[in-house]
Amino acid sequence: MIDHHTFALTAKPRGYHIITEEIMQNIDILPDNGLLNLFIHHTSAAITINEAADPDVLEDFESIFNFIIPENLPFLKHTIEGPDDMPAHIKAAMIGHSVQIPIINGKLGLGTWQGIYLCEFRNRGGSRKITATVFQ
Amino acid sequence: MIDHHTFALTAKPRGYHIITEEIMQNIDILPDNGLLNLFIHHTSAAITINEAADPDVLEDFESIFNFIIPENLPFLKHTIEGPDDMPAHIKAAMIGHSVQIPIINGKLGLGTWQGIYLCEFRNRGGSRKITATVFQ
Amino acid sequence: MIDHHTFALTAKPRGYHIITEEIMQNIDILPDNGLLNLFIHHTSAAITINEAADPDVLEDFESIFNFIIPENLPFLKHTIEGPDDMPAHIKAAMIGHSVQIPIINGKLGLGTWQGIYLCEFRNRGGSRKITATVFQ
Repeated sequence: MIDHHTFALTAKPRGYHIITEEIMQNIDILPDNGLLNLFIHHTSAAITINEAADPDVLEDFESIFNFIIPENLPFLKHTIEGPDDMPAHIKAAMIGHSVQIPIINGKLGLGTWQGIYLCEFRNRGGSRKITATVFQ
Repeated sequence: MIDHHTFALTAKPRGYHIITEEIMQNIDILPDNGLLNLFIHHTSAAITINEAADPDVLEDFESIFNFIIPENLPFLKHTIEGPDDMPAHIKAAMIGHSVQIPIINGKLGLGTWQGIYLCEFRNRGGSRKITATVFQ
Repeated sequence: MIDHHTFALTAKPRGYHIITEEIMQNIDILPDNGLLNLFIHHTSAAITINEAADPDVLEDFESIFNFIIPENLPFLKHTIEGPDDMPAHIKAAMIGHSVQIPIINGKLGLGTWQGIYLCEFRNRGGSRKITATVFQ
């Protein structure tokens, strides 16, 4: 059985945000056994799983990815949507458009330090649409 | 129910290519409700989902990933297959070997700007083999 | 049908390791047709699929990712767990927390050169926990 839940996240500022609770509020109930797939319907934001304990990690994500993929690289052609746009597409390709989490005993089988990240790469990305697919 | 469709893409030059239509031509029909997993059977090409509207984005993908992972880094050991080979493996690890797309109302649930990318990192990669797995 | 197998990998040194055999030893048997999802319950290690033939590739993975994400970047805040920690989180986000492999004719449908990688980013990461989910 495959059930989809499509919903919009609240708009978030540029940066990395823990959304585990917000995701769960948008899914009625988890089955006892299964797998959750999250898909983001955008190309300048991403979802992943990473450290959810220390907020400094979220700031370091922003700093390091900006260091690796700087804005205003002189060879870029797709610049009409602003200097944050093309780096956003690259970061999205690197981090990914979906996550998969086993559902075990009716709960997300996340590790101790793991949380779901919404990675907002645009200066004004607005609300982002997610489809949560529950396999059971 | 899980159905596999294994097929070869037409050979493509080094670079980033939108293959949404080519993928769909190789899958008979989508179920009303489900999920599509695409898997690439190679380690020097990748698949992902990104912006499918402006062809400049595809060129900027090539430029930026070459900027981040340059060829001929002096410390490399695996150089026998050419300067494009080892960077290809790294790009493949960064971008990924599979994508997951929800199937909603008999269609791929892609966002407005999303398309499926074949990322060809080799100068002469040839035809690439994909397995499309349809869950329903 | 969805079956989970949760197990610990043997502890591995920092670096990139082929674990295809170790994964298979922890799964009783594969169905004739299906898909395998592997999930790593950690945020400073990753799993992916890449070249499994030449051990030099594994060393070059270590060198290139250290080149792209160097330790001791001066702007980092999350430094209390050591200089290898924050780069580990970034590498994990880039490479990924899960892989999906089609199961075809009772076997993993990997390409000729593909193997499953455990990417250990910490100097002393210890044993890593994996959940293998078999869909059939």
